[in-house]
Amino acid sequence: MDSIFADRIADVPRSFIREILKVALDHTYISFAGGLPNRDLFPIVELQKVAAKVFDIFGRDVLQYSSSEGFPGLKEIIARRYFQKIGVKIPIEQILITTGSQQGLDLLGKSLLNDGDPLVIEEPGYLGAIQAFSLYKPEFLPVPVDDSGMDVKRLKQAMRKKPKLIYTVPNFSNPSGITYPEENRYAVAGVIEGTGTLLIEDDPYGEIRFAGSPQPSFLTLLPRNTILLGTFSKIIAPGFRLGWIVAPEAIMDKLIVAKQASDLNTTYYLQALIYQYLQDNDIEAHIRLIRECYGRQLRAMLEGIKEYFPPTVTHTHPEGGMFIWAALPGDASTRKLLDIAVKDKVIFVPGDPFYINRRETNTMRLNFSCMDEAMTKTGIERLGKAIKTLLG
Amino acid sequence: MDSIFADRIADVPRSFIREILKVALDHTYISFAGGLPNRDLFPIVELQKVAAKVFDIFGRDVLQYSSSEGFPGLKEIIARRYFQKIGVKIPIEQILITTGSQQGLDLLGKSLLNDGDPLVIEEPGYLGAIQAFSLYKPEFLPVPVDDSGMDVKRLKQAMRKKPKLIYTVPNFSNPSGITYPEENRYAVAGVIEGTGTLLIEDDPYGEIRFAGSPQPSFLTLLPRNTILLGTFSKIIAPGFRLGWIVAPEAIMDKLIVAKQASDLNTTYYLQALIYQYLQDNDIEAHIRLIRECYGRQLRAMLEGIKEYFPPTVTHTHPEGGMFIWAALPGDASTRKLLDIAVKDKVIFVPGDPFYINRRETNTMRLNFSCMDEAMTKTGIERLGKAIKTLLG
Repeated sequence: MDSIFADRIADVPRSFIREILKVALDHTYISFAGGLPNRDLFPIVELQKVAAKVFDIFGRDVLQYSSSEGFPGLKEIIARRYFQKIGVKIPIEQILITTGSQQGLDLLGKSLLNDGDPLVIEEPGYLGAIQAFSLYKPEFLPVPVDDSGMDVKRLKQAMRKKPKLIYTVPNFSNPSGITYPEENRYAVAGVIEGTGTLLIEDDPYGEIRFAGSPQPSFLTLLPRNTILLGTFSKIIAPGFRLGWIVAPEAIMDKLIVAKQASDLNTTYYLQALIYQYLQDNDIEAHIRLIRECYGRQLRAMLEGIKEYFPPTVTHTHPEGGMFIWAALPGDASTRKLLDIAVKDKVIFVPGDPFYINRRETNTMRLNFSCMDEAMTKTGIERLGKAIKTLLG
Repeated sequence: MDSIFADRIADVPRSFIREILKVALDHTYISFAGGLPNRDLFPIVELQKVAAKVFDIFGRDVLQYSSSEGFPGLKEIIARRYFQKIGVKIPIEQILITTGSQQGLDLLGKSLLNDGDPLVIEEPGYLGAIQAFSLYKPEFLPVPVDDSGMDVKRLKQAMRKKPKLIYTVPNFSNPSGITYPEENRYAVAGVIEGTGTLLIEDDPYGEIRFAGSPQPSFLTLLPRNTILLGTFSKIIAPGFRLGWIVAPEAIMDKLIVAKQASDLNTTYYLQALIYQYLQDNDIEAHIRLIRECYGRQLRAMLEGIKEYFPPTVTHTHPEGGMFIWAALPGDASTRKLLDIAVKDKVIFVPGDPFYINRRETNTMRLNFSCMDEAMTKTGIERLGKAIKTLLG
């Protein structure tokens, strides 16, 4: 029966992370494997108030099919917030509401990628993006990122192939927690400026900053080439599956066609609900709560690492987001570490699925958004013990 | 900038129907062009009650990321209803919740179709399916349908090409309102039985039957080859974007991978909301209301046609669903008819987008779900006048 499948799907693995999450349902484990926002911070009371009145305010319209482009009221709020935060005026015609940011990636792949089209992706890179784009069979050109941002020399080499797309998460990347510094952003923008390459700035975490100061969006540095993806998943809740694409006018028509073919339109009911939530509540105050909480938990993790990990283990120092990226010394394997750690009732995601070639690596992703400080320290203590066992 | 796009999207037009709906916002027009369920029948009071208590019942979980497969509670209800209606026991592992039925079509194309794979589609056929599949560039093999169902001789010819998929809407098809008679279903199943071809039974309207009796589902006639698509859009409301795929176990794994890559998971919040609605309310009684209403409106349309259309206009006699399919005599063009009708403030969808080659035709789709009897008759009178003007 295997031959019935499309070639494009043969090589796309199930998400390792979603699989490991199933293990994590056993509460005796401490899990740094998840990529979930902290459920205790979901504004459930406020959302319940809004849910009770959406129909009174919007009536039956929210239950009907609606525009593929998205609810203009919600798009106006999104545009206004960008203006306040990055000073860019975005016409709402350049915003497309998507069924989560993941759909944004799918629509971009669907409307832009032919088989074998070169696509630059930061490495380590977001697994969901690798999954989504894999289905459109591009030639992946991984370019390494580290604390100094995207490797500009390697980017220039990759640009010789005239890539159609460059995929980046420049703020507190998933999986690495890395933020591209300002000078790196200018350098990256300089390489792309004047070419036909489009840069995808996937920015789910940008507002969850608890140290340092915001870096310029590529939308301000490279307005003609930047596609910006945003989402309410990390600042309100992921369960509504509401995201958006900000894209140059020239590609919006095709994105809308791809959207129609994919799910006709994103639920108007939930767009109205989030719109009303944003009208009735101070989202900025709510985001401050998230920042404070994740910041405390990150500090606990960093303290734990200092106390319990061998000093040969290196790691990133995120200023926001939800992840730390750590590396064991030499060629010690985090796959092997996971085998030991599971027995000690602590789990994480080994680095390999975040690389295009999925090679065994010495790296791992540690999530800090979902656990209080005490639990974080206990988990890091267990993990430190497992690392010491592995390293001998 | 055109070269930036993927080949797959170059040929996919924006949905004509969604475009014409924009005209229909002017309320001096009478529109038979829509494909919308009747908003007056949305169970808004009941849904509001449920919306107010979803969080109390399900807590924060519904706001988090959730399983790609869908909420088991909702899938159990779907399985139970199939058992009651068609006597088939479907394990919930064979049900995948989708973001509307349209996403079901996209996931099937994404996971099953290679460029150039032969795909049989009933003709006239559902525009959303043509759109969704077009993106995966199959070789469309249209097979005509009429009141006697799918043309079995033409289907046999098409089967020589070993199509991967056959797309059908056997109950009250969009656009034609045609239902495949029982003997035709057996004949179609007989042709497919024992081959590797999968038949998609897209069934959004099956429960909206107001005359005659239910015909056997292909799931009962051809269980190993049938993929069944269902949706809550026509029996509750489309604004929630909730549908499902029932598929053989052998393809479910790949469908789930495609689902993860497309939007991770369908909103748990809305799955919980619909689950609770179904627990608290008598959906069968609600469906009876819809049937009665659409049945009355269809009768008004048929009476209007008899009174105001020239007798040379032929049309289908649907026993359910939302559409009549009418044909002008000879080679009179419904595109030209629309030009006249618009001036008379009545609109409909000309038949051409429902054909793979989009040729100008003498056929048109008339929707009867959205308008009361008096308005329906007025609209049909206007359209009859336009037809007489065209035919001279």
